[in-house]
Amino acid sequence: MDISINTKLVLFLGKPLGQSISTSVINLAYQEEGLDFVRIPVEAAPEDLSDLVLGMRKLNLAGFNVTKPNKIEILQYLDQLDPLAEAIGAVNCVTCRDGVWKGCNTDAEGFLASLKSRCEVTDKTFFCLGAGGTGRAICFALAQAGAKRLFITDLCQAAAQSLADSLNAYCSGSIAEWITAEAEKNNAIRQADVILNASGIGMAPHLDESPMDPALLSPHQLVFDAVYNPAKTRLLKDAEKAGCTFFNGREMVMNCNRIGFGYITGKIVTPEKWSTYMEAAERLS
Amino acid sequence: MDISINTKLVLFLGKPLGQSISTSVINLAYQEEGLDFVRIPVEAAPEDLSDLVLGMRKLNLAGFNVTKPNKIEILQYLDQLDPLAEAIGAVNCVTCRDGVWKGCNTDAEGFLASLKSRCEVTDKTFFCLGAGGTGRAICFALAQAGAKRLFITDLCQAAAQSLADSLNAYCSGSIAEWITAEAEKNNAIRQADVILNASGIGMAPHLDESPMDPALLSPHQLVFDAVYNPAKTRLLKDAEKAGCTFFNGREMVMNCNRIGFGYITGKIVTPEKWSTYMEAAERLS
Repeated sequence: MDISINTKLVLFLGKPLGQSISTSVINLAYQEEGLDFVRIPVEAAPEDLSDLVLGMRKLNLAGFNVTKPNKIEILQYLDQLDPLAEAIGAVNCVTCRDGVWKGCNTDAEGFLASLKSRCEVTDKTFFCLGAGGTGRAICFALAQAGAKRLFITDLCQAAAQSLADSLNAYCSGSIAEWITAEAEKNNAIRQADVILNASGIGMAPHLDESPMDPALLSPHQLVFDAVYNPAKTRLLKDAEKAGCTFFNGREMVMNCNRIGFGYITGKIVTPEKWSTYMEAAERLS
Repeated sequence: MDISINTKLVLFLGKPLGQSISTSVINLAYQEEGLDFVRIPVEAAPEDLSDLVLGMRKLNLAGFNVTKPNKIEILQYLDQLDPLAEAIGAVNCVTCRDGVWKGCNTDAEGFLASLKSRCEVTDKTFFCLGAGGTGRAICFALAQAGAKRLFITDLCQAAAQSLADSLNAYCSGSIAEWITAEAEKNNAIRQADVILNASGIGMAPHLDESPMDPALLSPHQLVFDAVYNPAKTRLLKDAEKAGCTFFNGREMVMNCNRIGFGYITGKIVTPEKWSTYMEAAERLS
Protein backbone atom coordinates (compact mmCIF):
# COMPACT_ATOMS: atom_id res chain seq x y z
CA MET A 1 0.00 0.00 0.00
CA ASP A 2 1.90 3.05 -1.22
CA ILE A 3 -0.02 6.09 -0.11
CA SER A 4 0.23 9.21 -2.28
CA ILE A 5 -1.80 12.34 -2.98
CA ASN A 6 -3.81 10.23 -5.45
CA THR A 7 -4.85 7.76 -2.77
CA LYS A 8 -8.55 8.06 -2.01
CA LEU A 9 -9.38 8.11 1.68
CA VAL A 10 -12.39 6.36 3.20
CA LEU A 11 -13.05 7.07 6.87
CA PHE A 12 -15.07 4.94 9.27
CA LEU A 13 -16.76 6.90 12.05
CA GLY A 14 -18.10 5.32 15.22
CA LYS A 15 -17.45 4.94 18.91
CA PRO A 16 -16.31 2.52 20.17
CA LEU A 17 -14.77 0.82 17.14
CA GLY A 18 -12.54 -1.65 18.95
CA GLN A 19 -14.37 -4.83 17.96
CA SER A 20 -14.77 -4.07 14.26
CA ILE A 21 -12.62 -5.93 11.75
CA SER A 22 -14.36 -4.29 8.78
CA THR A 23 -11.38 -1.98 8.20
CA SER A 24 -9.02 -4.93 7.78
CA VAL A 25 -11.43 -6.63 5.38
CA ILE A 26 -11.97 -3.49 3.32
CA ASN A 27 -8.29 -2.51 3.16
CA LEU A 28 -7.47 -6.04 2.05
CA ALA A 29 -10.19 -5.79 -0.60
CA TYR A 30 -8.75 -2.47 -1.88
CA GLN A 31 -5.37 -4.11 -2.20
CA GLU A 32 -6.60 -7.28 -3.87
CA GLU A 33 -8.82 -5.34 -6.25
CA GLY A 34 -5.94 -3.03 -7.19
CA LEU A 35 -7.65 0.12 -5.92
CA ASP A 36 -5.62 3.07 -4.62
CA PHE A 37 -7.87 3.56 -1.59
CA VAL A 38 -7.23 3.38 2.13
CA ARG A 39 -9.76 3.08 4.93
CA ILE A 40 -9.07 4.71 8.27
CA PRO A 41 -11.16 4.13 11.40
CA VAL A 42 -11.82 7.25 13.46
CA GLU A 43 -13.34 6.97 16.92
CA ALA A 44 -15.85 9.78 16.89
CA ALA A 45 -19.07 10.39 18.81
CA PRO A 46 -21.95 12.65 17.66
CA GLU A 47 -20.43 15.67 19.44
CA ASP A 48 -17.24 15.26 17.40
CA LEU A 49 -18.95 15.31 14.03
CA SER A 50 -19.35 19.04 13.43
CA ASP A 51 -15.59 19.70 13.65
CA LEU A 52 -14.65 16.45 12.02
CA VAL A 53 -16.74 16.99 8.89
CA LEU A 54 -15.19 20.44 8.36
CA GLY A 55 -11.78 18.80 8.21
CA MET A 56 -13.08 15.91 6.12
CA ARG A 57 -14.26 18.34 3.44
CA LYS A 58 -10.56 19.17 2.89
CA LEU A 59 -9.40 15.57 2.44
CA ASN A 60 -9.23 13.49 -0.73
CA LEU A 61 -12.27 11.49 0.41
CA ALA A 62 -14.02 8.92 -1.77
CA GLY A 63 -16.57 8.33 0.95
CA PHE A 64 -17.01 7.23 4.51
CA ASN A 65 -18.87 4.73 6.62
CA VAL A 66 -20.79 5.55 9.74
CA THR A 67 -21.76 3.31 12.61
CA LYS A 68 -23.21 3.65 16.11
CA PRO A 69 -23.80 6.20 17.54
CA ASN A 70 -23.59 8.43 14.44
CA LYS A 71 -26.04 6.96 11.92
CA ILE A 72 -28.74 9.56 12.54
CA GLU A 73 -26.54 12.47 13.66
CA ILE A 74 -24.63 12.42 10.36
CA LEU A 75 -27.74 13.26 8.31
CA GLN A 76 -27.47 17.01 8.91
CA TYR A 77 -24.03 17.13 7.27
CA LEU A 78 -24.98 15.44 4.00
CA ASP A 79 -25.91 17.04 0.67
CA GLN A 80 -28.12 14.26 -0.66
CA LEU A 81 -29.92 11.18 0.61
CA ASP A 82 -30.87 7.98 -1.15
CA PRO A 83 -34.70 7.60 -0.83
CA LEU A 84 -34.48 4.40 1.23
CA ALA A 85 -31.97 6.00 3.65
CA GLU A 86 -34.27 9.00 3.88
CA ALA A 87 -37.23 6.78 4.77
CA ILE A 88 -35.18 4.86 7.34
CA GLY A 89 -33.82 8.13 8.73
CA ALA A 90 -30.33 6.68 9.14
CA VAL A 91 -27.23 6.45 7.01
CA ASN A 92 -24.24 4.13 7.26
CA CYS A 93 -22.47 4.82 3.98
CA VAL A 94 -21.68 8.12 2.28
CA THR A 95 -20.19 8.65 -1.15
CA CYS A 96 -18.21 11.84 -1.82
CA ARG A 97 -18.04 12.74 -5.50
CA ASP A 98 -17.17 16.22 -6.76
CA GLY A 99 -17.83 17.59 -3.31
CA VAL A 100 -21.32 16.08 -3.09
CA TRP A 101 -21.85 13.89 -0.03
CA LYS A 102 -24.66 11.40 -0.60
CA GLY A 103 -25.88 9.11 2.14
CA CYS A 104 -27.31 5.63 1.75
CA ASN A 105 -28.17 2.74 4.03
CA THR A 106 -26.50 -0.53 3.22
CA ASP A 107 -27.85 -2.19 6.38
CA ALA A 108 -31.17 -2.48 4.56
CA GLU A 109 -29.65 -3.81 1.35
CA GLY A 110 -27.21 -6.04 3.20
CA PHE A 111 -30.00 -7.63 5.19
CA LEU A 112 -32.19 -8.10 2.12
CA ALA A 113 -29.43 -9.79 0.13
CA SER A 114 -28.87 -12.16 3.05
CA LEU A 115 -32.59 -12.90 3.48
CA LYS A 116 -33.36 -13.35 -0.22
CA SER A 117 -30.87 -16.18 -0.54
CA ARG A 118 -33.09 -18.03 1.96
CA CYS A 119 -36.70 -17.01 1.23
CA GLU A 120 -39.01 -14.88 -0.85
CA VAL A 121 -40.21 -11.65 0.72
CA THR A 122 -43.48 -11.05 -1.13
CA ASP A 123 -46.59 -12.50 0.53
CA LYS A 124 -44.68 -13.26 3.71
CA THR A 125 -45.50 -12.14 7.26
CA PHE A 126 -42.65 -10.88 9.44
CA PHE A 127 -42.29 -10.33 13.14
CA CYS A 128 -39.56 -7.90 14.11
CA LEU A 129 -38.27 -7.58 17.66
CA GLY A 130 -36.62 -4.20 18.05
CA ALA A 131 -37.36 -0.86 16.37
CA GLY A 132 -33.96 0.81 16.80
CA GLY A 133 -31.54 1.53 13.95
CA THR A 134 -31.17 -2.07 12.79
CA GLY A 135 -34.90 -2.78 13.16
CA ARG A 136 -35.78 0.28 11.10
CA ALA A 137 -33.36 -0.66 8.31
CA ILE A 138 -34.63 -4.24 8.21
CA CYS A 139 -38.31 -3.27 8.19
CA PHE A 140 -37.92 -0.66 5.46
CA ALA A 141 -35.98 -3.17 3.37
CA LEU A 142 -38.87 -5.62 3.79
CA ALA A 143 -41.50 -3.01 3.02
CA GLN A 144 -39.64 -1.97 -0.12
CA ALA A 145 -39.25 -5.60 -1.17
CA GLY A 146 -43.01 -6.30 -0.95
CA ALA A 147 -43.56 -7.92 2.44
CA LYS A 148 -47.26 -8.70 3.10
CA ARG A 149 -47.32 -7.88 6.79
CA LEU A 150 -44.96 -6.64 9.47
CA PHE A 151 -45.47 -6.92 13.21
CA ILE A 152 -43.16 -4.75 15.28
CA THR A 153 -42.44 -4.74 18.98
CA ASP A 154 -39.94 -2.86 21.11
CA LEU A 155 -39.42 -2.23 24.82
CA CYS A 156 -39.90 1.39 23.82
CA GLN A 157 -43.49 1.49 22.57
CA ALA A 158 -43.05 4.88 20.94
CA ALA A 159 -40.22 3.53 18.76
CA ALA A 160 -42.35 0.59 17.61
CA GLN A 161 -45.32 2.83 16.88
CA SER A 162 -43.25 5.41 15.06
CA LEU A 163 -41.65 2.73 12.88
CA ALA A 164 -45.02 1.17 12.02
CA ASP A 165 -46.45 4.58 11.14
CA SER A 166 -43.47 5.48 8.95
CA LEU A 167 -43.64 2.14 7.15
CA ASN A 168 -47.33 2.57 6.39
CA ALA A 169 -46.71 6.10 5.14
CA TYR A 170 -43.80 4.85 3.01
CA CYS A 171 -45.99 2.13 1.45
CA SER A 172 -49.17 4.22 1.32
CA GLY A 173 -50.88 1.25 2.94
CA SER A 174 -51.21 -0.53 6.25
CA ILE A 175 -48.75 -3.38 6.15
CA ALA A 176 -47.14 -2.63 9.52
CA GLU A 177 -48.58 -3.01 13.00
CA TRP A 178 -46.99 -2.30 16.37
CA ILE A 179 -47.69 -4.55 19.29
CA THR A 180 -47.37 -4.23 23.05
CA ALA A 181 -49.67 -6.70 24.84
CA GLU A 182 -48.07 -10.10 25.50
CA ALA A 183 -51.07 -12.03 24.12
CA GLU A 184 -51.10 -10.06 20.89
CA LYS A 185 -47.35 -10.50 20.60
CA ASN A 186 -47.59 -14.27 21.01
CA ASN A 187 -50.36 -14.44 18.47
CA ALA A 188 -48.34 -12.39 15.97
CA ILE A 189 -45.27 -14.57 16.44
CA ARG A 190 -47.38 -17.67 15.64
CA GLN A 191 -48.62 -16.05 12.42
CA ALA A 192 -45.15 -14.99 11.26
CA ASP A 193 -43.28 -16.78 8.48
CA VAL A 194 -40.07 -15.03 9.51
CA ILE A 195 -39.00 -13.91 12.99
CA LEU A 196 -36.34 -11.20 13.17
CA ASN A 197 -34.39 -10.17 16.23
CA ALA A 198 -33.00 -6.66 15.94
CA SER A 199 -33.14 -5.92 19.67
CA GLY A 200 -29.55 -6.77 20.54
CA ILE A 201 -30.82 -9.19 23.20
CA GLY A 202 -28.56 -12.26 23.07
CA MET A 203 -25.40 -10.18 22.67
CA ALA A 204 -23.14 -9.25 25.61
CA PRO A 205 -24.13 -8.20 28.27
CA HIS A 206 -27.42 -10.02 27.50
CA LEU A 207 -25.82 -13.35 26.58
CA ASP A 208 -28.10 -16.33 27.03
CA GLU A 209 -31.19 -14.13 27.07
CA SER A 210 -33.86 -14.41 24.40
CA PRO A 211 -36.42 -11.78 23.38
CA MET A 212 -39.20 -14.40 23.03
CA ASP A 213 -40.71 -17.57 24.44
CA PRO A 214 -39.21 -20.60 22.58
CA ALA A 215 -42.51 -22.50 22.90
CA LEU A 216 -43.96 -20.21 20.21
CA LEU A 217 -41.57 -21.39 17.49
CA SER A 218 -42.68 -23.83 14.77
CA PRO A 219 -40.46 -25.74 12.32
CA HIS A 220 -41.83 -23.90 9.24
CA GLN A 221 -40.50 -20.59 10.55
CA LEU A 222 -37.30 -18.86 9.47
CA VAL A 223 -35.49 -17.15 12.36
CA PHE A 224 -32.93 -14.36 11.98
CA ASP A 225 -30.79 -12.76 14.65
CA ALA A 226 -28.86 -9.61 13.68
CA VAL A 227 -26.32 -10.51 16.38
CA TYR A 228 -23.43 -12.65 15.13
CA ASN A 229 -21.18 -12.51 18.16
CA PRO A 230 -21.95 -15.01 19.62
CA ALA A 231 -22.58 -16.85 16.34
CA LYS A 232 -25.52 -18.69 17.89
CA THR A 233 -27.53 -16.62 20.35
CA ARG A 234 -30.01 -18.14 22.75
CA LEU A 235 -32.79 -17.34 20.24
CA LEU A 236 -30.98 -19.21 17.45
CA LYS A 237 -30.31 -22.17 19.74
CA ASP A 238 -34.03 -22.26 20.56
CA ALA A 239 -34.82 -22.02 16.84
CA GLU A 240 -32.49 -24.92 16.09
CA LYS A 241 -34.12 -27.00 18.82
CA ALA A 242 -37.56 -26.20 17.43
CA GLY A 243 -36.49 -27.38 13.96
CA CYS A 244 -36.58 -23.91 12.38
CA THR A 245 -34.24 -22.66 9.68
CA PHE A 246 -32.12 -19.88 11.14
CA PHE A 247 -29.28 -17.49 10.33
CA ASN A 248 -27.35 -14.74 12.04
CA GLY A 249 -26.22 -11.23 11.07
CA ARG A 250 -22.74 -12.14 9.85
CA GLU A 251 -23.80 -12.35 6.22
CA MET A 252 -25.81 -9.14 6.56
CA VAL A 253 -22.73 -7.30 7.79
CA MET A 254 -20.61 -8.87 5.08
CA ASN A 255 -23.09 -7.76 2.41
CA CYS A 256 -23.40 -4.38 4.02
CA ASN A 257 -19.62 -3.79 3.80
CA ARG A 258 -19.46 -5.29 0.31
CA ILE A 259 -22.31 -3.14 -1.01
CA GLY A 260 -20.85 -0.01 0.61
CA PHE A 261 -17.48 -0.84 -0.96
CA GLY A 262 -19.24 -0.92 -4.33
CA TYR A 263 -20.93 2.45 -3.80
CA ILE A 264 -17.72 4.13 -2.69
CA THR A 265 -15.30 2.63 -5.22
CA GLY A 266 -17.65 1.94 -8.13
CA LYS A 267 -16.36 -1.65 -8.21
CA ILE A 268 -18.71 -4.56 -7.50
CA VAL A 269 -17.26 -7.58 -5.72
CA THR A 270 -19.16 -10.88 -5.60
CA PRO A 271 -20.29 -12.26 -2.21
CA GLU A 272 -18.03 -15.30 -2.78
CA LYS A 273 -14.94 -13.16 -3.33
CA TRP A 274 -15.84 -10.88 -0.43
CA SER A 275 -16.15 -13.91 1.79
CA THR A 276 -12.54 -14.86 1.03
CA TYR A 277 -11.40 -11.34 2.00
CA MET A 278 -13.32 -11.58 5.25
CA GLU A 279 -11.85 -14.98 6.07
CA ALA A 280 -8.33 -13.80 5.27
CA ALA A 281 -8.75 -10.71 7.49
CA GLU A 282 -10.10 -12.89 10.31
CA ARG A 283 -7.11 -15.21 10.05
CA LEU A 284 -4.74 -12.24 10.32
CA SER A 285 -6.54 -10.60 13.24
CA MET B 1 0.20 -2.24 6.89
CA ASP B 2 -2.93 -3.22 8.78
CA ILE B 3 -4.69 -0.03 9.79
CA SER B 4 -6.74 -0.12 12.99
CA ILE B 5 -8.00 2.35 15.62
CA ASN B 6 -4.57 2.03 17.26
CA THR B 7 -2.77 3.22 14.14
CA LYS B 8 -1.27 6.66 14.65
CA LEU B 9 -1.89 9.07 11.80
CA VAL B 10 0.67 11.56 10.55
CA LEU B 11 -0.57 14.06 7.97
CA PHE B 12 1.55 16.03 5.52
CA LEU B 13 0.07 19.39 4.57
CA GLY B 14 1.19 21.36 1.55
CA LYS B 15 0.15 22.44 -1.93
CA PRO B 16 1.17 21.22 -4.40
CA LEU B 17 2.56 17.94 -3.08
CA GLY B 18 2.85 16.09 -6.41
CA GLN B 19 6.67 15.94 -6.54
CA SER B 20 7.28 14.83 -2.96
CA ILE B 21 8.36 11.26 -2.30
CA SER B 22 8.77 11.87 1.42
CA THR B 23 5.50 10.05 2.18
CA SER B 24 6.74 6.88 0.50
CA VAL B 25 10.06 7.08 2.39
CA ILE B 26 8.37 7.69 5.74
CA ASN B 27 5.69 5.00 5.30
CA LEU B 28 8.42 2.54 4.37
CA ALA B 29 10.36 3.58 7.48
CA TYR B 30 7.28 3.03 9.70
CA GLN B 31 6.93 -0.44 8.26
CA GLU B 32 10.59 -1.38 8.52
CA GLU B 33 10.84 0.00 12.05
CA GLY B 34 7.73 -1.91 13.11
CA LEU B 35 5.73 1.21 13.98
CA ASP B 36 1.94 1.26 13.71
CA PHE B 37 1.89 4.66 12.02
CA VAL B 38 0.67 5.83 8.63
CA ARG B 39 1.46 9.06 6.83
CA ILE B 40 -1.13 10.64 4.59
CA PRO B 41 -0.42 13.58 2.28
CA VAL B 42 -3.17 16.20 2.18
CA GLU B 43 -3.11 18.92 -0.44
CA ALA B 44 -4.04 21.97 1.59
CA ALA B 45 -3.36 25.67 1.14
CA PRO B 46 -3.37 28.28 3.95
CA GLU B 47 -7.07 29.00 3.43
CA ASP B 48 -7.87 25.32 4.08
CA LEU B 49 -6.09 25.15 7.41
CA SER B 50 -8.72 26.57 9.77
CA ASP B 51 -11.28 23.89 8.86
CA LEU B 52 -8.71 21.17 8.45
CA VAL B 53 -7.19 21.59 11.92
CA LEU B 54 -10.65 21.36 13.54
CA GLY B 55 -11.06 17.95 11.97
CA MET B 56 -7.47 16.95 12.72
CA ARG B 57 -8.08 17.54 16.43
CA LYS B 58 -10.54 14.61 16.27
CA LEU B 59 -8.11 12.16 14.65
CA ASN B 60 -5.66 9.78 16.30
CA LEU B 61 -2.76 12.04 15.24
CA ALA B 62 0.83 11.49 16.37
CA GLY B 63 1.88 14.60 14.51
CA PHE B 64 2.02 16.22 11.11
CA ASN B 65 4.43 17.77 8.70
CA VAL B 66 3.91 21.08 6.99
CA THR B 67 5.44 22.38 3.80
CA LYS B 68 4.97 25.30 1.42
CA PRO B 69 2.85 27.39 1.57
CA ASN B 70 1.79 26.57 5.15
CA LYS B 71 4.94 26.84 7.27
CA ILE B 72 4.09 30.26 8.70
CA GLU B 73 0.28 30.07 8.50
CA ILE B 74 0.23 26.97 10.72
CA LEU B 75 1.75 28.83 13.70
CA GLN B 76 -1.59 30.26 14.86
CA TYR B 77 -3.04 26.78 15.35
CA LEU B 78 -0.29 25.40 17.58
CA ASP B 79 -0.17 25.18 21.38
CA GLN B 80 3.59 25.33 21.82
CA LEU B 81 6.66 26.25 19.81
CA ASP B 82 10.22 25.02 20.06
CA PRO B 83 12.44 28.13 20.66
CA LEU B 84 14.34 27.75 17.38
CA ALA B 85 11.08 27.42 15.42
CA GLU B 86 9.78 30.48 17.23
CA ALA B 87 12.88 32.47 16.27
CA ILE B 88 12.66 31.31 12.66
CA GLY B 89 8.95 32.06 12.64
CA ALA B 90 8.19 28.91 10.67
CA VAL B 91 7.32 25.32 11.48
CA ASN B 92 7.54 22.20 9.36
CA CYS B 93 6.98 19.49 11.95
CA VAL B 94 4.37 19.25 14.70
CA THR B 95 4.10 16.65 17.43
CA CYS B 96 0.67 15.91 18.92
CA ARG B 97 0.86 14.39 22.40
CA ASP B 98 -2.05 14.36 24.84
CA GLY B 99 -3.76 17.02 22.76
CA VAL B 100 -0.78 19.39 22.82
CA TRP B 101 0.42 20.44 19.38
CA LYS B 102 4.05 21.52 19.47
CA GLY B 103 5.80 22.94 16.44
CA CYS B 104 9.46 22.64 15.55
CA ASN B 105 11.62 23.35 12.53
CA THR B 106 13.61 20.43 11.21
CA ASP B 107 14.79 22.39 8.16
CA ALA B 108 17.25 24.12 10.48
CA GLU B 109 18.42 20.91 12.15
CA GLY B 110 18.45 18.98 8.89
CA PHE B 111 20.65 21.59 7.25
CA LEU B 112 23.00 21.76 10.21
CA ALA B 113 23.47 17.98 10.34
CA SER B 114 24.30 18.02 6.65
CA LEU B 115 26.73 20.98 6.97
CA LYS B 116 28.49 19.72 10.09
CA SER B 117 29.57 16.51 8.39
CA ARG B 118 31.56 18.79 6.04
CA CYS B 119 32.82 21.73 8.11
CA GLU B 120 32.87 23.41 11.49
CA VAL B 121 30.45 26.28 11.98
CA THR B 122 32.17 28.29 14.72
CA ASP B 123 34.50 31.03 13.52
CA LYS B 124 33.26 30.70 9.97
CA THR B 125 31.81 33.42 7.74
CA PHE B 126 28.72 32.57 5.69
CA PHE B 127 27.10 34.20 2.72
CA CYS B 128 23.45 33.36 2.26
CA LEU B 129 21.56 34.09 -0.94
CA GLY B 130 17.85 34.16 -0.18
CA ALA B 131 15.99 35.19 2.98
CA GLY B 132 12.74 33.25 2.44
CA GLY B 133 11.66 30.25 4.52
CA THR B 134 14.70 28.10 3.73
CA GLY B 135 17.13 31.00 4.12
CA ARG B 136 15.67 31.87 7.54
CA ALA B 137 15.91 28.29 8.77
CA ILE B 138 19.50 27.96 7.55
CA CYS B 139 20.65 31.29 9.03
CA PHE B 140 19.08 30.65 12.45
CA ALA B 141 20.65 27.20 12.49
CA LEU B 142 24.02 28.82 11.81
CA ALA B 143 23.51 31.56 14.40
CA GLN B 144 22.54 28.95 17.00
CA ALA B 145 25.55 26.84 16.12
CA GLY B 146 28.00 29.72 16.64
CA ALA B 147 28.71 31.15 13.19
CA LYS B 148 31.08 34.15 13.31
CA ARG B 149 29.45 36.21 10.60
CA LEU B 150 26.49 36.00 8.27
CA PHE B 151 25.95 38.06 5.13
CA ILE B 152 22.45 37.94 3.74
CA THR B 153 21.08 39.09 0.43
CA ASP B 154 17.68 38.76 -1.20
CA LEU B 155 15.91 40.27 -4.19
CA CYS B 156 13.49 41.52 -1.56
CA GLN B 157 15.62 43.89 0.55
CA ALA B 158 13.07 43.99 3.36
CA ALA B 159 13.30 40.22 3.79
CA ALA B 160 17.09 40.31 4.00
CA GLN B 161 17.01 43.20 6.48
CA SER B 162 14.34 41.61 8.62
CA LEU B 163 16.26 38.33 8.77
CA ALA B 164 19.52 40.08 9.72
CA ASP B 165 17.74 42.08 12.43
CA SER B 166 16.04 38.96 13.88
CA LEU B 167 19.33 37.06 13.89
CA ASN B 168 21.11 39.85 15.75
CA ALA B 169 18.28 40.05 18.28
CA TYR B 170 18.35 36.26 18.68
CA CYS B 171 22.13 36.31 19.34
CA SER B 172 22.10 39.59 21.28
CA GLY B 173 24.95 40.64 19.02
CA SER B 174 25.67 41.79 15.51
CA ILE B 175 26.73 38.72 13.61
CA ALA B 176 24.38 39.25 10.68
CA GLU B 177 24.49 41.90 7.95
CA TRP B 178 22.18 42.44 5.02
CA ILE B 179 23.59 43.54 1.72
CA THR B 180 22.16 45.13 -1.40
CA ALA B 181 24.85 46.93 -3.41
CA GLU B 182 26.58 44.71 -5.97
CA ALA B 183 30.07 45.82 -4.87
CA GLU B 184 29.38 45.01 -1.23
CA LYS B 185 27.86 41.70 -2.22
CA ASN B 186 30.92 40.72 -4.25
CA ASN B 187 33.19 41.73 -1.41
CA ALA B 188 31.18 39.67 1.09
CA ILE B 189 31.21 36.61 -1.18
CA ARG B 190 35.00 36.81 -1.37
CA GLN B 191 35.22 36.90 2.45
CA ALA B 192 32.89 33.97 2.96
CA ASP B 193 34.08 30.50 3.95
CA VAL B 194 30.72 29.03 3.00
CA ILE B 195 28.31 30.19 0.29
CA LEU B 196 24.70 29.11 0.64
CA ASN B 197 22.01 29.34 -2.01
CA ALA B 198 18.52 29.37 -0.54
CA SER B 199 17.01 31.49 -3.30
CA GLY B 200 15.59 28.67 -5.43
CA ILE B 201 17.49 30.07 -8.43
CA GLY B 202 18.82 27.09 -10.37
CA MET B 203 15.60 25.10 -9.96
CA ALA B 204 12.90 24.97 -12.66
CA PRO B 205 11.82 27.40 -14.10
CA HIS B 206 15.21 29.04 -13.40
CA LEU B 207 17.32 26.10 -14.61
CA ASP B 208 20.80 27.09 -15.71
CA GLU B 209 20.64 30.39 -13.87
CA SER B 210 22.97 31.20 -11.00
CA PRO B 211 22.46 33.74 -8.19
CA MET B 212 26.12 34.87 -8.33
CA ASP B 213 29.09 35.58 -10.58
CA PRO B 214 31.26 32.40 -10.82
CA ALA B 215 34.42 34.52 -11.05
CA LEU B 216 34.05 35.28 -7.33
CA LEU B 217 34.49 31.65 -6.22
CA SER B 218 37.80 30.39 -4.76
CA PRO B 219 38.86 26.77 -4.20
CA HIS B 220 38.89 27.11 -0.39
CA GLN B 221 35.15 27.84 -0.30
CA LEU B 222 32.36 25.38 0.50
CA VAL B 223 29.27 25.89 -1.66
CA PHE B 224 25.79 24.66 -0.77
CA ASP B 225 22.64 24.76 -2.88
CA ALA B 226 19.37 23.90 -1.14
CA VAL B 227 18.04 22.79 -4.53
CA TYR B 228 18.58 19.09 -5.27
CA ASN B 229 16.52 18.74 -8.38
CA PRO B 230 18.53 19.13 -10.55
CA ALA B 231 21.23 17.45 -8.47
CA LYS B 232 23.83 19.89 -9.82
CA THR B 233 22.55 23.39 -10.37
CA ARG B 234 24.42 25.96 -12.40
CA LEU B 235 25.90 27.32 -9.14
CA LEU B 236 27.22 23.89 -8.14
CA LYS B 237 28.65 23.32 -11.64
CA ASP B 238 30.43 26.68 -11.33
CA ALA B 239 31.68 25.67 -7.85
CA GLU B 240 32.99 22.38 -9.21
CA LYS B 241 34.80 24.22 -12.04
CA ALA B 242 36.31 26.65 -9.52
CA GLY B 243 37.65 23.75 -7.45
CA CYS B 244 35.33 24.34 -4.48
CA THR B 245 33.83 21.64 -2.29
CA PHE B 246 30.06 21.63 -2.84
CA PHE B 247 26.88 19.82 -1.84
CA ASN B 248 23.17 20.06 -2.56
CA GLY B 249 19.99 19.96 -0.43
CA ARG B 250 19.25 16.26 -0.79
CA GLU B 251 20.93 15.34 2.47
CA MET B 252 19.29 18.29 4.23
CA VAL B 253 15.86 17.06 3.16
CA MET B 254 16.76 13.52 4.14
CA ASN B 255 17.89 14.66 7.59
CA CYS B 256 14.87 16.90 7.88
CA ASN B 257 12.50 13.97 7.31
CA ARG B 258 14.56 11.67 9.50
CA ILE B 259 14.68 14.12 12.41
CA GLY B 260 10.94 14.85 12.09
CA PHE B 261 10.29 11.10 12.10
CA GLY B 262 12.21 10.92 15.38
CA TYR B 263 10.22 13.74 16.97
CA ILE B 264 6.89 12.29 15.93
CA THR B 265 7.52 8.61 16.69
CA GLY B 266 10.11 8.91 19.44
CA LYS B 267 12.34 6.52 17.50
CA ILE B 268 15.73 7.68 16.20
CA VAL B 269 16.92 6.26 12.89
CA THR B 270 20.55 6.64 11.78
CA PRO B 271 21.32 8.62 8.60
CA GLU B 272 22.74 5.44 7.03
CA LYS B 273 19.56 3.46 7.65
CA TRP B 274 17.39 6.36 6.52
CA SER B 275 19.38 6.55 3.33
CA THR B 276 18.48 2.94 2.51
CA TYR B 277 14.77 3.75 3.03
CA MET B 278 15.08 6.75 0.73
CA GLU B 279 16.81 4.72 -1.97
CA ALA B 280 14.24 1.93 -1.70
CA ALA B 281 11.38 4.43 -2.02
CA GLU B 282 13.04 6.04 -5.03
CA ARG B 283 13.44 2.67 -6.74
CA LEU B 284 9.73 1.96 -6.23
CA SER B 285 8.55 5.37 -7.44
